[in-house]
Amino acid sequence: METPFSFELLAQHGQARAGVFHTPHGDIPTPIFAPVGTKATVKGVTPAQLHELQSQLVLANTYHLYLRPGDELIAEMGGLHTFMGWDEPILTDSGGFQVFSLGDINAIDDEGVTFQSHVDGSLHRFTPEKAIHIQENLGADIIMAFDECTEPYDHAYNNEAMARTHAWAKRSKEAQTRADQALFGIVQGGIFPDLRAQSAEYIASLDFPGNAIGGLSVGETKAEMHEILEVVNEILPIDKPRYLMGVGTPLDIVNGVLRGVDIFDCVHPTRLARHKAAFTRTGRMNVSSAIYANDPKPLIEGCTCYTCQNFSRAYLRHLINQKEMLAGTLLSIHNIHTLLQLARDLREAIIDGTVEQYIERLGNQETIQLSN
Amino acid sequence: METPFSFELLAQHGQARAGVFHTPHGDIPTPIFAPVGTKATVKGVTPAQLHELQSQLVLANTYHLYLRPGDELIAEMGGLHTFMGWDEPILTDSGGFQVFSLGDINAIDDEGVTFQSHVDGSLHRFTPEKAIHIQENLGADIIMAFDECTEPYDHAYNNEAMARTHAWAKRSKEAQTRADQALFGIVQGGIFPDLRAQSAEYIASLDFPGNAIGGLSVGETKAEMHEILEVVNEILPIDKPRYLMGVGTPLDIVNGVLRGVDIFDCVHPTRLARHKAAFTRTGRMNVSSAIYANDPKPLIEGCTCYTCQNFSRAYLRHLINQKEMLAGTLLSIHNIHTLLQLARDLREAIIDGTVEQYIERLGNQETIQLSN
Repeated sequence: METPFSFELLAQHGQARAGVFHTPHGDIPTPIFAPVGTKATVKGVTPAQLHELQSQLVLANTYHLYLRPGDELIAEMGGLHTFMGWDEPILTDSGGFQVFSLGDINAIDDEGVTFQSHVDGSLHRFTPEKAIHIQENLGADIIMAFDECTEPYDHAYNNEAMARTHAWAKRSKEAQTRADQALFGIVQGGIFPDLRAQSAEYIASLDFPGNAIGGLSVGETKAEMHEILEVVNEILPIDKPRYLMGVGTPLDIVNGVLRGVDIFDCVHPTRLARHKAAFTRTGRMNVSSAIYANDPKPLIEGCTCYTCQNFSRAYLRHLINQKEMLAGTLLSIHNIHTLLQLARDLREAIIDGTVEQYIERLGNQETIQLSN
Repeated sequence: METPFSFELLAQHGQARAGVFHTPHGDIPTPIFAPVGTKATVKGVTPAQLHELQSQLVLANTYHLYLRPGDELIAEMGGLHTFMGWDEPILTDSGGFQVFSLGDINAIDDEGVTFQSHVDGSLHRFTPEKAIHIQENLGADIIMAFDECTEPYDHAYNNEAMARTHAWAKRSKEAQTRADQALFGIVQGGIFPDLRAQSAEYIASLDFPGNAIGGLSVGETKAEMHEILEVVNEILPIDKPRYLMGVGTPLDIVNGVLRGVDIFDCVHPTRLARHKAAFTRTGRMNVSSAIYANDPKPLIEGCTCYTCQNFSRAYLRHLINQKEMLAGTLLSIHNIHTLLQLARDLREAIIDGTVEQYIERLGNQETIQLSN
């Protein structure tokens, strides 16, 4: 199928890349971080605030939206962009990860997966065709092939699941009927370099407009994650964007970009915010700590986000202690800004050829593992 | 004490008035509605969103802030404006209403009130001097005299409490040390026109830069409230702003303005929002109702608020059903906008001499009781 999507590579520095993914709803500069709007809302943050944060890609979850309010309803309301009031690019996952992590699995076979909803126990069946049909109803700009997500440490099972994921990727592609959505394939294979290499070869051969790396950040060590990224990105085509699914601490983003990843998403910024924590450039701080009770400083000195420009640690701690809604909103704004800004800074450094200097300035090099 | 505050009366139409209250943090056009930020935050709404709503006066509660995080801490952080990131006018109440409605009263005497905190049972004592001292620490632009709030139906007790309120008003004035805060007196007297008239005479005689009407919207009928407003505003000076405390449904605002009230505050807009309801121009709608499940219309057609300009009833209902934080924020924005816009429209109609036509357009005249 012909696609209106194209990836433009602007600069490379080692494995790190800076580019632009052109989509009908606007350009996506890469590297980029996508905030997660699970149920068609980035928790506690309005689309206007996301625009102010210069967010250019938002993720929504197919599994949740299929269950509530239903993909048919969202289609009837004009699709996700209209429904959630977001006119820039949206990415939906295939539902695979949530089916396997939240659903109560009744049966997995080569055809698809039968599961019970975590909401009400009702019985549902996802197949690659169904996952694509739902995502076509939702109408995001980037949609994902249906895949099987497993625990990462059993070679035999990962081999078997990978074979299904490959067959499902092909069927996902064949099921696609809309030309205005970019379908990405997903590389699986657990922590095993041999399986990951096979998977990257096969997924690359299907010639998707973009490729994703799934099944990471599920319990493996950082060293394992980095090795897999190096193996996979050595094989994935250079002229297609690479999306590392569900990964997004500041350090993960730095380490991912250094290994050739272009797109990241993660619930971390908003989830941490609801758990009273703020990102620093390379770590986090617990804002409810008594040490901030009368601290007039912003969360991070020099941070240009709305929260840091206007509020003190003392105020944010007060909001947290009083269980005020605004605490979650203001910490989410800061946390999302931190990852967006990190991706923007990395992009600029790649274009300028100043990646090493930038990482040195980040000042936490012992946890940033430079690839060879 | 000389005050940098002054009230400019621009137009009158019957008892209804349009004016400007000049304060060091900016002009307050009247009639005006003040959203309530009990704990130094209008629940779920950022100061930037309040600016976008053209909110020009915000209320915060002395009782709550005294208990948590403490007025001394807020003073140390630079005062309420800096603490909550709001550079326009702020009004604090005296704590009186909350002491009597939330605190566990141990003793009321002519000197003050001893009560236990509703948070942790700790023992506290408020006197007029203490209430002023706390409000000077908080640093709002408009502060309130300490008063006794009673149930409104016992003439003998209201007479006794009113006498205390009068003595406390005088002591509040004498206790004031800051010239950059406008101290308002409060008229009490339950539902009894004779007591209310006495109270208005006495409070007016103290020559505060503004006067408030307390103890309404506490269970009396609308007809009783309207009669009291007519009695009191007949007596209160025309050249000082009049503030009707804690009152703020759309109809209450219309009926209050028609009886000479200039300033309103109420938790209604944000509280209703958290209870899934949206203001219509003269009533309310339950947005969680199944009838809105696939309704693509905005809450109110023609409404210019951010929520109505960008989101459907179907989306808002989805957010409510999924207990998403954004539901409270978006409904609060709509509800606050509705009352702010109503006050702005009334102001314009008073200036233009088109109050009757405006009220006819509101289209719910059976519940708007025009005063003579």
